[in-house]
Amino acid sequence: MVDPVSDLVSRARDGQARAVARLISYVEDTSPLLREVTAALAPYAGRAQVIGITGAPGVGKSTSTSALVSEYRSRDLRVGVLAVDPSSPFSGGALLGDRVRMQEHATDPGVFIRSMASRGHLGGLAWATPQAVRVLDAAGFDVVIVETVGVGQSEVEVAGAADTTLVLLAPGMGDGVQSAKAGILEIGDIFVVNKADRDGAEATLRELRHMIALGAGPRSGRSDDRWSPQVLRTVAARGEGITDVVDAIADHHDWLARTGMLAERRRGRAASEIEAIAFATLRARIGDLRGDVRLDALASRVVTGDLDPYSAADTLVSGLSL
Amino acid sequence: MVDPVSDLVSRARDGQARAVARLISYVEDTSPLLREVTAALAPYAGRAQVIGITGAPGVGKSTSTSALVSEYRSRDLRVGVLAVDPSSPFSGGALLGDRVRMQEHATDPGVFIRSMASRGHLGGLAWATPQAVRVLDAAGFDVVIVETVGVGQSEVEVAGAADTTLVLLAPGMGDGVQSAKAGILEIGDIFVVNKADRDGAEATLRELRHMIALGAGPRSGRSDDRWSPQVLRTVAARGEGITDVVDAIADHHDWLARTGMLAERRRGRAASEIEAIAFATLRARIGDLRGDVRLDALASRVVTGDLDPYSAADTLVSGLSL
Repeated sequence: MVDPVSDLVSRARDGQARAVARLISYVEDTSPLLREVTAALAPYAGRAQVIGITGAPGVGKSTSTSALVSEYRSRDLRVGVLAVDPSSPFSGGALLGDRVRMQEHATDPGVFIRSMASRGHLGGLAWATPQAVRVLDAAGFDVVIVETVGVGQSEVEVAGAADTTLVLLAPGMGDGVQSAKAGILEIGDIFVVNKADRDGAEATLRELRHMIALGAGPRSGRSDDRWSPQVLRTVAARGEGITDVVDAIADHHDWLARTGMLAERRRGRAASEIEAIAFATLRARIGDLRGDVRLDALASRVVTGDLDPYSAADTLVSGLSL
Repeated sequence: MVDPVSDLVSRARDGQARAVARLISYVEDTSPLLREVTAALAPYAGRAQVIGITGAPGVGKSTSTSALVSEYRSRDLRVGVLAVDPSSPFSGGALLGDRVRMQEHATDPGVFIRSMASRGHLGGLAWATPQAVRVLDAAGFDVVIVETVGVGQSEVEVAGAADTTLVLLAPGMGDGVQSAKAGILEIGDIFVVNKADRDGAEATLRELRHMIALGAGPRSGRSDDRWSPQVLRTVAARGEGITDVVDAIADHHDWLARTGMLAERRRGRAASEIEAIAFATLRARIGDLRGDVRLDALASRVVTGDLDPYSAADTLVSGLSL
């Protein structure tokens, strides 16, 4: 008999898009098979270069992603894309998104594009994204792009999941750079002003460079110690400037590897993922005690004032079989 | 030397409002002293009758609460009020609210009114409310009223914290009862149509009774087996109908005590509280492992693919000292 999980993993590694899609669905649905899937994927993971792309709605994230995919394909690299929509709790819209994005790369077996909805459950994105990245990584994609709209906490989570984070901006959006939250300066390794053929592009570039210089000021040191964020311009719809962006990503990756930061970032990411899983495990074990006679007995003693709830919680926790 | 916590508890039990306020602040701030405070309060808790009041903005919750307080005072009972605002993350507004509400009962030592902001942290209200109720309960208030605006999850949490839940409505609010979420029918033990001197009051009462009858239909049985929700009318601003409401609350409390439901509700409440504390404890223990060599070592093995994150999480959990 064929083990369904290892069969699925080997088909995903053979480049079968449907097997990859199924594995990502396991992540989205927090399937009971996920533990087994993750174990089966682990030996093959850790090879892909993970790139995060974030930016406000309307800056051209999808167009830029599509242009980056084309550039990576011309360099003969296989590319997986996760388009994460933190605002959409339903996968319906996300699936429609897939088809629109797929147009250009639909017939290319070296490209896999998947939209993921965060399903509105707290921590869903932070928990699911590294696991979905691992699927694409283990399936043999050389580059994994995680694209998300920069709202609230999502851009920080994307930066947490990526080796290199690109922040996209466009000229003439409200107050330009000022309107972008100050937080983006902290998470961006590379800043891209897209739609750079439009009025105001120069002003946006200038403002951005100024803000980065201000932010970098006090912590200057030997040049190799820290990365100086790059500021680039593109017209993604015409493919202009995309080669420079891919070169800058490669430079950043080299810097990460040279300084040991790559290993450090990935270790931090793995530690967060382990913590999140450990936490979910413990939560489930406590939840299993619902209706258990031990919890009922403790609750009765708290009601009568014989025991305080903190001591009851200690007893409950010490009774967990770990 | 006087132990500050037991001193504070004994001053709260002597009726000193400032000591009561301090203890509730410990709950709001999740003070490190909270464990000790909770243990010191436990022997004195479990005596108060806890009443939840919820309803949409504008139905007259504050006015109704104030009228109920007056009625309980005329029956010579001491009353504590927790006004919980789940939408306000800051205590500033809540403090201002205190003063406005305090006007009528400001000089009455038999009344304690406190506004609590939920501070926007998830589960804050569900976690903090039972602890704040315990402070008032242990301080010797005969009746504790928990008032909250009925938005999102908050009304369900109030019902969870109370022995008896009052749902307030007012005539002519949009589509009347229909506009109130269906959920309120499940949580209300007593329904009050306030501002009953206004146009549309009769229609609202009729509609409410109809919906309750529909909801009660399939699960009818012996009359004492289940509580038939009461539907009452008030004009709280003039004190009209308030005596009937307090009588109905007493009837409901008698029914709870007679059927054993009171003990069951309180046990369920205590179990939830114990779970929440146990969960927070475990979360803190995992958090303590940030930067620990064991977590770092596990993360390194996950990065190289030598170990999958679920197995790493198992190792982490089994290494926790409980």
